[in-house]
Amino acid sequence: MKIDGKPYRTIWLNDDGWGVDIIDQTRLPHEFIVARLETLEDTIYAIGDMQVRGAPLIGVTAAYGIALALRTDAGDQALAAACDKLVAARPTAVNLAWAVKFVRAQLLRLPEGDRASAAYQLAAEMADEDAEICRSIGRYGVKILESIASKKTGPVNILTHCNAGALATVEWGTATAPIYMAQAKGMKLHVWVDETRPRNQGAALTAYELGQAGVEHTVIVDNVGGHLMQNDMVDLCIVGTDRTTASGDVCNKIGTYLKALAAHDNGVPFYVALPGPTIDWNLENGADIPIEQRPGDEVKYLAGRTRDGKMEAVDILAPGSSVANYAFDVTPAKYITGLITERGVCAASKKGLLGLYPEQAG
Amino acid sequence: MKIDGKPYRTIWLNDDGWGVDIIDQTRLPHEFIVARLETLEDTIYAIGDMQVRGAPLIGVTAAYGIALALRTDAGDQALAAACDKLVAARPTAVNLAWAVKFVRAQLLRLPEGDRASAAYQLAAEMADEDAEICRSIGRYGVKILESIASKKTGPVNILTHCNAGALATVEWGTATAPIYMAQAKGMKLHVWVDETRPRNQGAALTAYELGQAGVEHTVIVDNVGGHLMQNDMVDLCIVGTDRTTASGDVCNKIGTYLKALAAHDNGVPFYVALPGPTIDWNLENGADIPIEQRPGDEVKYLAGRTRDGKMEAVDILAPGSSVANYAFDVTPAKYITGLITERGVCAASKKGLLGLYPEQAG
Repeated sequence: MKIDGKPYRTIWLNDDGWGVDIIDQTRLPHEFIVARLETLEDTIYAIGDMQVRGAPLIGVTAAYGIALALRTDAGDQALAAACDKLVAARPTAVNLAWAVKFVRAQLLRLPEGDRASAAYQLAAEMADEDAEICRSIGRYGVKILESIASKKTGPVNILTHCNAGALATVEWGTATAPIYMAQAKGMKLHVWVDETRPRNQGAALTAYELGQAGVEHTVIVDNVGGHLMQNDMVDLCIVGTDRTTASGDVCNKIGTYLKALAAHDNGVPFYVALPGPTIDWNLENGADIPIEQRPGDEVKYLAGRTRDGKMEAVDILAPGSSVANYAFDVTPAKYITGLITERGVCAASKKGLLGLYPEQAG
Repeated sequence: MKIDGKPYRTIWLNDDGWGVDIIDQTRLPHEFIVARLETLEDTIYAIGDMQVRGAPLIGVTAAYGIALALRTDAGDQALAAACDKLVAARPTAVNLAWAVKFVRAQLLRLPEGDRASAAYQLAAEMADEDAEICRSIGRYGVKILESIASKKTGPVNILTHCNAGALATVEWGTATAPIYMAQAKGMKLHVWVDETRPRNQGAALTAYELGQAGVEHTVIVDNVGGHLMQNDMVDLCIVGTDRTTASGDVCNKIGTYLKALAAHDNGVPFYVALPGPTIDWNLENGADIPIEQRPGDEVKYLAGRTRDGKMEAVDILAPGSSVANYAFDVTPAKYITGLITERGVCAASKKGLLGLYPEQAG
């Protein structure tokens, strides 16, 4: 992704060969700040405070965090302690736990003296692999956009929810990868960006990265998408997913389901872009996914920049009222037109997924 | 409605006999401020800036605005100019146009010298009539709640969107009237209050008035309702409407349509509460209703109270991004279980409506 014209990933090894640089996403969209991670503690803070967020990016960051920890002490006990602390930084992030477990298992096989450099190597490989997965999602997704573009005049209007963009991954993003590739090919595009309350990752992050990429876009509150679809102002929806079941149900940011219903009601194609590793082959039914409830203060307080330039959180709630903050919802497979993966596009069904991932059959 | 235990309407004639007092709804929920209207310009500002909002309340406010204008000049030309300016303050508000047209027609028959006092009289009558209509909506609506309560244990869970409460009318509200009556009868209730971006009338106003009335409630972001309905956490939805077509399509606050889709998908009854005067008998198809676009700053800036107690607006948008702010959407009649009017409950259809309003036939 380019920021002010300069290419960036969301995480990279500093030129000094050991420090890890990240884009501090808590400061976006109002400030672009690169933060430097030098210790395990820096990494835990970055993950817990959501300086980095998005399943793929959290995994890569954790891998670098292990590398930083091992520079001081590469013994089994220190490795175990570092891994436990990293997982505890975002207890509900499945991908974080998976990445930490994977890296730890690889490192345990090695002599202590080789572990730190191997951890750096693994982190870099994970970053490259994520970028490659997203690039591949983009290549398949752009064909869908091209097909729509060929049947209409004017820009292709895409609606997206939350941030399944470059900032949630290492680069390209999942839902945004087809958009960036279409833009690079010169296709006329316009993206409707759902604000995505409560944390506003749409208005803050998706809008920011689309703006940096020069993609035409308009931010709307989460209530608007249905009206747009009723009025032929959306050609297709593309969203990301935190977890996809073996039968194609999609667990994504709260509100995704409502947009899928509106798409279905108005004959608008509804696509979900996902990396294969986020498919949960052990889970059939989306209704069985436990839905994380996050702190009520995310609803009650809204952060932004005051007219005189300070960052400030304001309380928008009637005093004394309670709030509930369900973070995700489940969109049943029947409302999903297709799943865009790094191996191709398939129906949101067991059969569709197994067609692309036959090694998961049986 | 009682505020801190003291009974209030949303608009009333000041004890001085000519100034008009309103609750300034832009200051709620953090400050309860009574604003005074002394001129036509004050009234236009109050309507345009949404110090008063809600179809019935806007109508009554406009009637008082005409009275205030006529105190200076009660000639035909001044009357016409005042009426035009008032209607232009909220172009989508059919009730505003209707109220202004009605008052104007009554006043044109009178000699200039009698017009101002007649306008005050008409405004007061309209306020009383609105209160009576809402009370009657409540009486019919409470039967629906009683029927649901009789078939379950635990509280009746109601989801509502925006504010179709006492603050949107003169008192009682439309969607809230059944709730307040059920509460008065001792029924166990719980209301899910949609935040209702961009202006947050749910989190600010509905939560405020439910809290003042002692009704159990929980504020949620607009993205959550579908998830709740998927998980049997909503027994019914009740919303208001700004404009209902002769065939039962409902134009209400943006996002209503998405909740109606979720209700339909999950077998949750979806009711719309409405005063007869908001039915547009000349309009068949909801798709023909022009949808007001409001200023983008309503999306970009969010007002609330800082942790040190100041009211402040914060910018939540990525710099350089565009916004669109569609204020209403249309819910097709087929997704509406019933219309709750002051004359009873009917199907959302031409036949249903004409059954209650036979004088509109032919």
